[in-house]
Amino acid sequence: MLVVRTVADLRESLRAARRAEATIGLVPTMGALHHGHEALMEQARRECDVVVISIFVNPTQFNDPTDLERYPRTEEADLAAAERNGVDIAFVPDVAEMYPSGSSIEVRLDGPLVDTLEGAHRGSDHFHGVTTVVAKLFNIAQPTHAYFGQKDAQQVLVVQALVRELNLPVEIRVVDTVREPDGLAMSSRNIHVKGDDRRRALALKAALDATQSAYDGGSRDGAALVEAGVAAMKTYDVEPEYLAVVDPVTLEPLTEVDAGALVVIAAPVGPVRLIDNAVIR
Amino acid sequence: MLVVRTVADLRESLRAARRAEATIGLVPTMGALHHGHEALMEQARRECDVVVISIFVNPTQFNDPTDLERYPRTEEADLAAAERNGVDIAFVPDVAEMYPSGSSIEVRLDGPLVDTLEGAHRGSDHFHGVTTVVAKLFNIAQPTHAYFGQKDAQQVLVVQALVRELNLPVEIRVVDTVREPDGLAMSSRNIHVKGDDRRRALALKAALDATQSAYDGGSRDGAALVEAGVAAMKTYDVEPEYLAVVDPVTLEPLTEVDAGALVVIAAPVGPVRLIDNAVIR
Repeated sequence: MLVVRTVADLRESLRAARRAEATIGLVPTMGALHHGHEALMEQARRECDVVVISIFVNPTQFNDPTDLERYPRTEEADLAAAERNGVDIAFVPDVAEMYPSGSSIEVRLDGPLVDTLEGAHRGSDHFHGVTTVVAKLFNIAQPTHAYFGQKDAQQVLVVQALVRELNLPVEIRVVDTVREPDGLAMSSRNIHVKGDDRRRALALKAALDATQSAYDGGSRDGAALVEAGVAAMKTYDVEPEYLAVVDPVTLEPLTEVDAGALVVIAAPVGPVRLIDNAVIR
Repeated sequence: MLVVRTVADLRESLRAARRAEATIGLVPTMGALHHGHEALMEQARRECDVVVISIFVNPTQFNDPTDLERYPRTEEADLAAAERNGVDIAFVPDVAEMYPSGSSIEVRLDGPLVDTLEGAHRGSDHFHGVTTVVAKLFNIAQPTHAYFGQKDAQQVLVVQALVRELNLPVEIRVVDTVREPDGLAMSSRNIHVKGDDRRRALALKAALDATQSAYDGGSRDGAALVEAGVAAMKTYDVEPEYLAVVDPVTLEPLTEVDAGALVVIAAPVGPVRLIDNAVIR
């Protein structure tokens, strides 16, 4: 596996592949790779001739400086994991390479997709940071396919809108959330969830299961499903930052729920903030 | 020459060229083509295997609705001019194709490059509109080269910053301003300059010549050069909206002027607003 740290080196290392009209799969990550990322790499490996992983903790998408500072950085282990999963090229730029001094570019969407839920609670600058870095990474690597995890459901919708509205020539692939055996969604932030908080972290999955159960029991009322989810979390002594049953495309809250609705949750657990989501079946 | 009106058709028509690793030159225009545009097409024709012109009056870069409404639209003549100049493909999308309903994407730079001069007088949204549509056109056509006229000096700097900061894989070519025999810079808006205003429009070129003369006469003082330029315009009964001697990279006003400095002017002449610029030799 090749490790490159500059835009010029990445482009150079992809020149032959592009010339050969190879499919190029990009897996954009912030490192601290876990099984969820491995699922992205595996699917990219199955579908593409060349697999590129980017590892870059993007400062512009962090609203909370403490969260940024304590975001796990585990480059050596990440590179080993990438190699183990068949990645061809790891792109590991530093901040100055991605945002040279004086850089002021911003790629932004507006509207409910970036303003609600994560956008409301982390600030819409969070998604402006995401769309900016993703547009840059796409222009740098020029992938034919790019892989994102369904765990960040709103981010998936935002990236899909970015691709559509900026006419980016790349196909977005969405990969199912990977969970620990007990149901906790894999996340780089889980490393900070310790002791009893580890048990409390199950509140999110429990809430998703509770909303599905309520739906299975015949409830079609959005508020009732939310109530069932919140009640389930309470038994873990966790209060959601938000818990909503929304339209899976527009993210608008639903009063009447059908199969296909999206249940999204964010909640503080110990020192971190966790998110999870599921589609009502 | 092929005329295409959708993103999908343009991509399809460029597929073979891209496969053959052809160089693709894009000439982005708002139509109303004149000799200045012809110079762009000619250089693209000399340098690239495939030449694409885009003709799209981009509403998001107009600060003045009247200016947008009265911007000349001469599609038939434009297509004939493009064909005459060896263009292979004309991309002529409508507004709905470029900005489907619900679209909210914005690609924006911040800082003096977009806030001063044209940005100050037309509003920085003007350049946000430019960078957004240029990023979209680059993603749609994926050119290897793109051609812009030096007549819009600030736009050139903004587009170069866009390419650098968004990591767009395209080389920007800047083509000298083309002038009428009497010195008036070619512009699509000149069509609205009639009668005595046609003579008064020479005020801009006269001011550029006057600043050069003052420099040739030994003056190195920014304010003195500006004064010389404004005085020259006065003899044409034209007052500049701005007339500045600026750093050719940062656009910051210069107190001490050296060769290479940029003189930029905007002025209302009759019903339109004209701009022009020159580099101090």
